[in-house]
Amino acid sequence: MLEAARALAVTMGEPSGIGPEITLMAWAERFKRALPPFYVIADPDLLEARAQQIGLKVNLQVCDPSEARGIFDDALPVVPLPQAVNAQAGAPTPDTAEMVLASIRTAVEHVRDGLACAVATNPIAKETLYQAGFKHAGHTEYLGELSGLFGEEPAQPVMLLAGPDLMTVPVTLHIPLHKIWEELTPELLMSTARIVDADLKKRFRVERPRIAVAGLNPHAGENGTMGREEVEMIGPTLDRLRAEGLDVRGPLPGDTLFHEAARETYDVVLAMYHDQALIPVKTLAFDDTVNVTLGLPFVRTSPDHGTAFSLAGKGTASPDSLSAAMRLAVALSEPELV
Amino acid sequence: MLEAARALAVTMGEPSGIGPEITLMAWAERFKRALPPFYVIADPDLLEARAQQIGLKVNLQVCDPSEARGIFDDALPVVPLPQAVNAQAGAPTPDTAEMVLASIRTAVEHVRDGLACAVATNPIAKETLYQAGFKHAGHTEYLGELSGLFGEEPAQPVMLLAGPDLMTVPVTLHIPLHKIWEELTPELLMSTARIVDADLKKRFRVERPRIAVAGLNPHAGENGTMGREEVEMIGPTLDRLRAEGLDVRGPLPGDTLFHEAARETYDVVLAMYHDQALIPVKTLAFDDTVNVTLGLPFVRTSPDHGTAFSLAGKGTASPDSLSAAMRLAVALSEPELV
Repeated sequence: MLEAARALAVTMGEPSGIGPEITLMAWAERFKRALPPFYVIADPDLLEARAQQIGLKVNLQVCDPSEARGIFDDALPVVPLPQAVNAQAGAPTPDTAEMVLASIRTAVEHVRDGLACAVATNPIAKETLYQAGFKHAGHTEYLGELSGLFGEEPAQPVMLLAGPDLMTVPVTLHIPLHKIWEELTPELLMSTARIVDADLKKRFRVERPRIAVAGLNPHAGENGTMGREEVEMIGPTLDRLRAEGLDVRGPLPGDTLFHEAARETYDVVLAMYHDQALIPVKTLAFDDTVNVTLGLPFVRTSPDHGTAFSLAGKGTASPDSLSAAMRLAVALSEPELV
Repeated sequence: MLEAARALAVTMGEPSGIGPEITLMAWAERFKRALPPFYVIADPDLLEARAQQIGLKVNLQVCDPSEARGIFDDALPVVPLPQAVNAQAGAPTPDTAEMVLASIRTAVEHVRDGLACAVATNPIAKETLYQAGFKHAGHTEYLGELSGLFGEEPAQPVMLLAGPDLMTVPVTLHIPLHKIWEELTPELLMSTARIVDADLKKRFRVERPRIAVAGLNPHAGENGTMGREEVEMIGPTLDRLRAEGLDVRGPLPGDTLFHEAARETYDVVLAMYHDQALIPVKTLAFDDTVNVTLGLPFVRTSPDHGTAFSLAGKGTASPDSLSAAMRLAVALSEPELV
């Protein structure tokens, strides 16, 4: 078991999704899965009901964050929310939005106050939050805002997908494909590369991160004959980053960048858009991929899947990715354990 | 060894690239690699010189296509070109363009005339051909034109990438990414799907091909909230294809489409653009991926790599993909052997 000085804070996530049950299932297999001590910030009654629904025997114990490590072997430590959460599996409602957000905010406050080592978040449902007036583009962007709790400027959160054999970062993310040309700027590429470089050093203890950068077009534009973004924008931007001392390579053709021999030559790939980054990682390791948010003043990981409403309450969802997220969160918060 | 009634025709490809030497290397390991009987349409002196350059002892025997099967075990059968090909490894010249094209055209004529079972092509260098006045977009498009040799209308050639565990088809291909919106039409999607369906039945002997179709946007547009092409174009087009009796599924999110469990649910994936199709195939099986052209009145395969000028003449290039292309070409031309 990884031994962090403090326990890991796990958020409730969308209470009508699979979050509550995969948290319960992960705890039930805490030894087999080599999970670090964690506690969940949620309504204990909701967890109790969901455990019954899926036929899982779980001891819950309401506690303070500081007590979680002592409790974890014998019971699932639960730090309660200020209000009850009434949610049926598979039937999301905006009534729960306030407590969904409170769980996230509380987890970040616990890290700030030295009560938790890091945050692992369960999936949330953006639509439900929007109905309740949520203004952020998504989970990750909300966590960027919460950097303000550390007295810092809101951060640029950067999403890293970490599988056992490959790590990738999509420079543009959850946007329609045709909006790439509005969002993909030299500034965004530079700030993303700088955050990746800094956090691979700080969190992953990579002394000099080797950052491979994919082209946008097929064959990375083939010297400008199949698209101009590589020669006009990406290439010159990488020159500037190299001048700052970063080890960036590319732009390289996307299709030849992810096979086994290629993966030996870098630590991380910056991809230009969502599918270019996520296809290789999820093709290689669908159940073990973890989403890590770089650029924040705290460590945050999450499973690389959604709320899966259609599976909620059935006990058939896999706690694999959440478990991998929990282990990685603690490892990154205590870099000597990586 | 696969036993086709006729030998396989292999083209010379770009003579300054790795094509000549990987053909020689493949023949030298013909038993270990379980290669079908093949002959190469090339200048025998060029092959002789390249064999000497890489220090490989290869018996060459000039012959007619009909003699190739009887010769193959003891010598590499060579069907000569009408002119000599003067080419140095690594130094391409447009002077060879006429013979590069003659080799391809002759191979197709041999299949038409019942002298060869199928065509496996070595990589060509488009730039060199363009300098000599070549007017086609590429190798595959030229082969589409050569369908005319069968007395047929020029075909729409469709590129299929075949790895050991995954087959994908990019609906749009070698174009700058921003041109997707000009090329990706309902008509192109329909004609591509029909060709894939027909050729999987005819060549691969799949009784009822299960065709998974990827979305264009992240998460296949998430019901129109992250891009509209899925709800406005791809979805309705798939409805029309289903009405024709095709088993098409989707549009499905690209990132969750290629992992092991997902691959069990379909026979082939139609991807919307180059990297979406090629990243998963090449990530899983870089050296064994074969490029198959569907939609032609003859079987054509090729290795999934280029001319690799920087490796030419060194004897270090891998004949793996060409060997896989040879085996698959014969298997597809004799579907009972698949």
